[in-house]
Amino acid sequence: MSDDSKDIPADTAADLRSRAAELDAADGLAKLRERFTLPDGVVYLDGNSLGALPAGVADTTADVVARQWGELLIRSWDESGWWTAPERIGDKLAPLVGAAPGQVVVGDSTSVNLFKALVGAARLAAPGRTRLLVDAATFPTDGYIAESAARMTGLTVVPVDPSHAAEAMDADTAVVLLNHVDYRSGRLHDLPALTAAARAAGAITVWDLCHSAGALPVGLDEHAVDLAVGCTYKYLNGGPGAPAYLYIAARHQADFDSPLPGWNGHADPFAMTPGFEAAQGATRGRVGTPDILSMLALESALDAWDGVSVEAVRAKSLALTDFFLECVAAYVPQGRVESVTPDEHERRGSQISLRTENAREVMGELISRGVIGDFRAPDVLRFGFTPLYVGFADAERAARTLGHIFG
Amino acid sequence: MSDDSKDIPADTAADLRSRAAELDAADGLAKLRERFTLPDGVVYLDGNSLGALPAGVADTTADVVARQWGELLIRSWDESGWWTAPERIGDKLAPLVGAAPGQVVVGDSTSVNLFKALVGAARLAAPGRTRLLVDAATFPTDGYIAESAARMTGLTVVPVDPSHAAEAMDADTAVVLLNHVDYRSGRLHDLPALTAAARAAGAITVWDLCHSAGALPVGLDEHAVDLAVGCTYKYLNGGPGAPAYLYIAARHQADFDSPLPGWNGHADPFAMTPGFEAAQGATRGRVGTPDILSMLALESALDAWDGVSVEAVRAKSLALTDFFLECVAAYVPQGRVESVTPDEHERRGSQISLRTENAREVMGELISRGVIGDFRAPDVLRFGFTPLYVGFADAERAARTLGHIFG
Repeated sequence: MSDDSKDIPADTAADLRSRAAELDAADGLAKLRERFTLPDGVVYLDGNSLGALPAGVADTTADVVARQWGELLIRSWDESGWWTAPERIGDKLAPLVGAAPGQVVVGDSTSVNLFKALVGAARLAAPGRTRLLVDAATFPTDGYIAESAARMTGLTVVPVDPSHAAEAMDADTAVVLLNHVDYRSGRLHDLPALTAAARAAGAITVWDLCHSAGALPVGLDEHAVDLAVGCTYKYLNGGPGAPAYLYIAARHQADFDSPLPGWNGHADPFAMTPGFEAAQGATRGRVGTPDILSMLALESALDAWDGVSVEAVRAKSLALTDFFLECVAAYVPQGRVESVTPDEHERRGSQISLRTENAREVMGELISRGVIGDFRAPDVLRFGFTPLYVGFADAERAARTLGHIFG
Repeated sequence: MSDDSKDIPADTAADLRSRAAELDAADGLAKLRERFTLPDGVVYLDGNSLGALPAGVADTTADVVARQWGELLIRSWDESGWWTAPERIGDKLAPLVGAAPGQVVVGDSTSVNLFKALVGAARLAAPGRTRLLVDAATFPTDGYIAESAARMTGLTVVPVDPSHAAEAMDADTAVVLLNHVDYRSGRLHDLPALTAAARAAGAITVWDLCHSAGALPVGLDEHAVDLAVGCTYKYLNGGPGAPAYLYIAARHQADFDSPLPGWNGHADPFAMTPGFEAAQGATRGRVGTPDILSMLALESALDAWDGVSVEAVRAKSLALTDFFLECVAAYVPQGRVESVTPDEHERRGSQISLRTENAREVMGELISRGVIGDFRAPDVLRFGFTPLYVGFADAERAARTLGHIFG
C-alpha cells in the first residue's frame, strides 16, 4: 500500500502513522503479540470471530496426539489429566470473567451450554413465574435456544431491548437472558445494573459473554450474576469451535438441575449406577466425554494470558477503538460510513461496527488488501480489536485501507 | 514374558503360538495395522474404550493448527471446509453404519445427541403414547439422558431387558432406546428383529451404536431404523472425546424437531434472522459451532477404513474372540474366570468380558505386563478386539498373560 495515492493527503497519513508508532512504542502490552503466530502482512481484526493462534498450541496439540493418545492411550484419562480437564480449564479461565474457582466448567458448544443454563435457570426461578426475557437483538442462536428452553419448561419468551430491559422485569419474570456485548453493533450492556435489576425483581440472570470475555472485565462474582455462558474462540483464542463454558454461581450449584445430566456430571461416574446423582459444584454442568484435542488446545491457548490483567487489556482496547475511529474520520470521506458502535466508553465493547452501502463487497476488498474484518448482514463491517496482538499501526492501516477503497 | 514358566505347559503355549502365527499369516486385514501408530511391546485390547491413533492424524492436526487456523484464520470456515465438516464427515462415516448419504451428522457428545434423538423421537411418536422403553442394562448416560428427555416430553421411562424388549412394546410405547452391543457384557442385541418389532408396535426406535459401529455391520437403512447415535472414539478411532454422530432416517428428516435448535441447524444461518427455520436433511441435527480440531482429526482417522469392508472386519472379530476364548480356556485354570459374553456369534459384539474375583487388581497386573484392557465395576475384565490393528498373536499373548497371573 503506497502512501502517495491521491485520495488521502500525505500529511494526514504521515501524522497518523507517526501517532500510531508513538502509541505502539508506549504500549505496555505490545510485546504480547509475540505470544501469537500471525501471518505476515496481515492486519487481523476478526479476533471477535476467530482469535489468532497462540504460539504454544501447535506443540501442545502435537504432544496430545502423538504421546498422550498414541503412546499412553487409555491411561491418559488419568495420567495426562484428561478426565479433569473441564474443571481445570474452567478454573484457568475463571479469573478472566471474574469468577472464583469451582464455578466454571468447560465443554460443549455455547448453544448447548445456553440450553443447560436456561433450563437450569427456569428450574431455579420462583414457581409460577412465566416470562423469559430475551435480548431482542441477540445473536440468533440464543433466541432459538431460548424458544426451545421456554417451550420445554412452560415459559414464554418476551423479546426486550436490553437498554430498557430493567423496566420489563416484573414479578412474572422468571429468567433474563442478555448479551454482555451485542455481536453486531459492539454495544456493551450494563451488566452490573441489569443484574441488580433482575435480582430486585426476583428473576434469574443468564449472561452470554461471547463478545466480552477476554476483552473487558466481566465481574461475574462481584456483580452476583447467577449463570453465564460463553465461547472461547473469540477473544480467548481457543481455536475454531473450541469448547464453550458454563458458569454456575456457587450459591446455585446445589440446586442446579441440568436438562443434560450426562455421565460426566454424575457424582460417581465410574460406579455406573442406573440412577443419576448430580456431582457437587460446577461439575454437574458436564455432560458427555470431553473433546480432548480441542479442549487441551484451549488450555494451551490460555497461557497467552499469563501475567496479563483484563483491566490493562480493556484500557488498550478503548484506546485502540478510539484511535481507529479517529483514523476513519480522517481517512474516509464524510458520509460513506457510520459507526453503529456507541462512542461512550461505558457502552462500547472491543469492536467497531461501521454501517455502509455494499458492505459485503467493501469487506471483500479490504480482505484482498490484507485487512481482515468481517461482514454481518445486511450492511455492517465489523472490526474486532484484540489488544493481545493488535496494535495502533494495525488500526491506522485498516482505516487508511478503508479510506483508499472509498477514495 | 518367558515360555518356560511352570504354570503353563510349554507344549500348550507352543501350539497356540504356532496357531496364532498361522492365523495372522492368513489374515487379509493384518496389513491394516500399518495404518496405526501403536506403542512397541503392548497388546492393546481397549479399543472399545479409546481406539488407537491412526497414522495420518498427527500430520492432519498439525496442518489444521498451523496452516488452516494460524495462516488462513477466519477464511478457513470456507476455504478449508470447516463449515461443512459435520455433514461431510457424517457421509464418510455413513457406510460403516449402513446409511446412505445425507442422514448422518457429526458433532457434540453422544449424550447430547441422545437428548436430541430422544426428544426428537418423542415428537415423532404417535400422540398420546406415554412409554419410553430403555435398555435396563444400558451404559448409564443413556439412562440418565432418557430420564431427562422423558421428564421434558411427558413420557415415562420403562426399563426393559433387551432380550425381552419386543414383548414389552405395546400400543402405549412411544419410543424404544436400545444399545446395539452391551458395554459391559459385550452382548449383541438383535437390531433387525427389535427394530421390526418396534415398527410393528408403532414405536420410534433410537439405537445407541457406541459399541458396535466399526466392529460389525449395523445396517441402519436396511433395517429401517428411525434414529441412532454413536461415539467415534472406540472402534472408529477418532481420538479422545471425538465428536459423536446422529443418524436421522431420511423419511423422518422433514418432521425431526430438535430440542437443541442452534444456529448451525438453521436453514440460512448467516441470515441471522430471529426466528428458527430448520435446515433440510441431517443438518437440522447440528447445534453450535463445530469443534474443528477434534472433528478434522476424526475425518483423518476415518481414512484407516479406505477399502475395508465391515463384513471382513466382523469375520476377523469373531475369529479373534473365538481364538481368545480358546486360549483363555487353555491357559487359565478352570473356575478362575467366567465369560459373560455370549458364545453364539449372533449374540457377540467385538469384546470378551470375563468375570473374576479381584477384577480391578487383575486388570492392573495385566496392564503392568503390557496387556491393556479395562475394568468395569464390580467384577468384569473387558478385552476389546479391534480387527484393524489387533492380531491373533495379541489374543494369544493376552490370554497367556492372564494365565500367568492366575498360575
